[in-house]
Amino acid sequence: MSRLQKIRAEFQPQRPDILSDMNQIVFSREAKTSCLADEKEIAALFPKTFGRVIVSGGVGSREEAAPLKVGVVFSGGQASGGHNVISGLFDGLKKRSSESTLIGFLGGPSGIIDGKSIEITSEMLSMYRNQGGFDLIGSGRTKIETDEQFAASLETVQKLQLNGLVIIGGDDSNTNAALLAEYFLDKSCNCSVIGVPKTIDGDLQNEYIPISFGFDTAAKTYSEMIGNIERDALSAKKYYHFVKLMGRSASHITLECALATHSTFRLNALAAKGGDLSPESIQNDLSEEAAHCFASLPKEIQEQLLIDRDPHGNVRVSLIETEKLLIAKVKEELKNRSFQGTFSAISHFFGYEGRAGFPSNFDTHYCYAHGHVAAALVEDQKTGYMTCVGNLHRPVSEWTIKGLPITMLMNMEIRKGSSKPVIQKALVDLEGKAFKFFHESRISWGKEDHYRYPGPLQFFGETEMIDCIPLTLQFRT
Amino acid sequence: MSRLQKIRAEFQPQRPDILSDMNQIVFSREAKTSCLADEKEIAALFPKTFGRVIVSGGVGSREEAAPLKVGVVFSGGQASGGHNVISGLFDGLKKRSSESTLIGFLGGPSGIIDGKSIEITSEMLSMYRNQGGFDLIGSGRTKIETDEQFAASLETVQKLQLNGLVIIGGDDSNTNAALLAEYFLDKSCNCSVIGVPKTIDGDLQNEYIPISFGFDTAAKTYSEMIGNIERDALSAKKYYHFVKLMGRSASHITLECALATHSTFRLNALAAKGGDLSPESIQNDLSEEAAHCFASLPKEIQEQLLIDRDPHGNVRVSLIETEKLLIAKVKEELKNRSFQGTFSAISHFFGYEGRAGFPSNFDTHYCYAHGHVAAALVEDQKTGYMTCVGNLHRPVSEWTIKGLPITMLMNMEIRKGSSKPVIQKALVDLEGKAFKFFHESRISWGKEDHYRYPGPLQFFGETEMIDCIPLTLQFRT
Repeated sequence: MSRLQKIRAEFQPQRPDILSDMNQIVFSREAKTSCLADEKEIAALFPKTFGRVIVSGGVGSREEAAPLKVGVVFSGGQASGGHNVISGLFDGLKKRSSESTLIGFLGGPSGIIDGKSIEITSEMLSMYRNQGGFDLIGSGRTKIETDEQFAASLETVQKLQLNGLVIIGGDDSNTNAALLAEYFLDKSCNCSVIGVPKTIDGDLQNEYIPISFGFDTAAKTYSEMIGNIERDALSAKKYYHFVKLMGRSASHITLECALATHSTFRLNALAAKGGDLSPESIQNDLSEEAAHCFASLPKEIQEQLLIDRDPHGNVRVSLIETEKLLIAKVKEELKNRSFQGTFSAISHFFGYEGRAGFPSNFDTHYCYAHGHVAAALVEDQKTGYMTCVGNLHRPVSEWTIKGLPITMLMNMEIRKGSSKPVIQKALVDLEGKAFKFFHESRISWGKEDHYRYPGPLQFFGETEMIDCIPLTLQFRT
Repeated sequence: MSRLQKIRAEFQPQRPDILSDMNQIVFSREAKTSCLADEKEIAALFPKTFGRVIVSGGVGSREEAAPLKVGVVFSGGQASGGHNVISGLFDGLKKRSSESTLIGFLGGPSGIIDGKSIEITSEMLSMYRNQGGFDLIGSGRTKIETDEQFAASLETVQKLQLNGLVIIGGDDSNTNAALLAEYFLDKSCNCSVIGVPKTIDGDLQNEYIPISFGFDTAAKTYSEMIGNIERDALSAKKYYHFVKLMGRSASHITLECALATHSTFRLNALAAKGGDLSPESIQNDLSEEAAHCFASLPKEIQEQLLIDRDPHGNVRVSLIETEKLLIAKVKEELKNRSFQGTFSAISHFFGYEGRAGFPSNFDTHYCYAHGHVAAALVEDQKTGYMTCVGNLHRPVSEWTIKGLPITMLMNMEIRKGSSKPVIQKALVDLEGKAFKFFHESRISWGKEDHYRYPGPLQFFGETEMIDCIPLTLQFRT
């Protein structure tokens, strides 16, 4: 093991004061909720869980604890901090009752369907605390959607006699958590289903959820690399570097990295139209402008846009070489303008490098808190709720905790040709302070080579939490 | 500026005890030197500088200092720590005489030829201390080789009345430093020429030069990324990742990263035959085996092997997509073996990300020491010498300093069709302890997914220097 693996394994994350004594957390009821749109359809799809109240954690006296048995699963792509959600959940449960047990489902949601699980012990966890990756129990992209899959999941949960099931995932996985919560209640199963907001893309955020975990580490890892390349480019004065980042069309990662490094070109992911895309459907389905744009693309890129989707019907944006497309387009434009100088370009794609590294100090504390909140919500028999940790611009001790009914974040959207309840994805707000600041600065940053070099993620040397949270989040506080 | 930029700018590098008082350094003469091979030719090419003695720094009483005027230049690709060589040189000169001045040549060796320079001041330096990049004065790949270029360089040095010229560069640039030293003496110019060993490739090393600067930072930066990808791969169990690294055919970087991350595939750079490669010459020039190998390559890779060379006649290895070649070859082999499983592969190339980042603690101290040694050698009127800092496995305070006659590292080699004196490149020693350990371990590392995750470079939190130096160097001590 590396030195950092050892040091981080022994690190004790900070905890919000409210979570310092698990025996004193009580949830108070706040306003009743609805959903973002399409209330009638969504209420009809979630007859047992729709319209519940937001709950807010406070100090009070809690009843004596009975031992709980809780399952946990990773769903979808890696995001740094996942192991800390598990260790926070484990510690939170054990602090209430040392006889509580935590069951990990292996390889993602298929582990629930197939009943593949292990009991997570203190010894097993010890080498995964504050480490990156999801490898303690693995992850997967199987979506629980057929009747058989729902029934199999119920059977697993009943066989294991679980009091709760914690699903760590992105927007689609949390939608799935809400569907599972509704299904369990409908089948008179008392197992609570709790979601934890995970995704490096940052598109699972709203007025209650400041940011999904993993975003901070990914953005800081990419920013380190971008800053290094900027410094290299400024020294060599030889190449133009085109960088594509993971993070999908929401572009939060791109904006965060642009603010962190003052890089002045921004790659807007080519947002292909959702639904069924085939070469034949292009002419009919796309607007005239979009069809024109599509036709102007090199053959190679057209094909990349049409290749197979992931199980959620999403284009695999990371496989589209937009960075090379942009270089080709710039070359074409320079030729059209009879440019006489030299234009040498190098392309980079940063994606997998940022999903599984050691979680940043922010993600370390943030995920550990989410795990504790999940434990408290399960014990309170909340179901169809997502964990929420707020007040992030203040020191960790002052962070607040809530539980949000997942249905409140939903609207109806067309997915794979039919109308489905989904959690609305948050795109970058072009009217927001963060983007406006970038927009106002980028010309002068570019002209003056006014770069900023964040350097590698540091785990030592104290800083205020306000300096640790993502820059885009600092603009929102 | 980022937080790390500010904190690092204020950092004071550690210094070997021998450099703590510049007024007490005296160099003692050690053995006379020869060269690695071809003594007769090299002695004839360097009549004034061949066969000088190694000098070793010790404590003594030094004469009163006269103010010096010294020039400094970066030659070739970036390597982290370059700015610290300059700040070490600056501080070393000023400590002897506050009236000494340091002149930076702009944009590499062409700055010497064209007489483009600036005086480096304490204020200018303040924001570059312990930072990455070469952007204070820039770098370039122009090689001083024609009679006119030598004469122009002499004119510049005489016009500026320089007492010394410090050339920070790799093997070819240090060969150039030796040629310039000889030329200046031949023209009765007293300007000392001193080389500093720089290259991330690590191929400028031998029994006296433990390692070139920049190697450590580059290897640690790449290792961070590789470790992150390993953890991602282990969690996702979906892709095989093929990583190509900068570092040329010497492969020191690859071995260092393999040891740091326990990655088990090793990309041997395709070492194309030196000299003039054209499609026509292939059949005649290559051995039967090499020609067969060349013929088996995809057309695309054949072309990449034949594209233009850098000014030193080197194949631009980083432009050859060996990582994609390997993926294609593995697919072919699996097909031949009627493999029934799935094989999805992703390729990565890490190069520019590691050349200009914040120097590691090791490179920070190491470069600062080299700068001081350069100042002391110039004052001692040594010329055609390279700076040398040793005893690196011990605490910084115990590091030793030497000056090495550059000619001692030379032999004759064919370059661009004619016999030239060059510094011999050090390739990975396949009989050395480091490679043998890797070789003995890689099968079990691969079978057991026994990865190691180094994580991002840390600047805080004390460690022994023995834990900071490159792993391959630890094997040699």
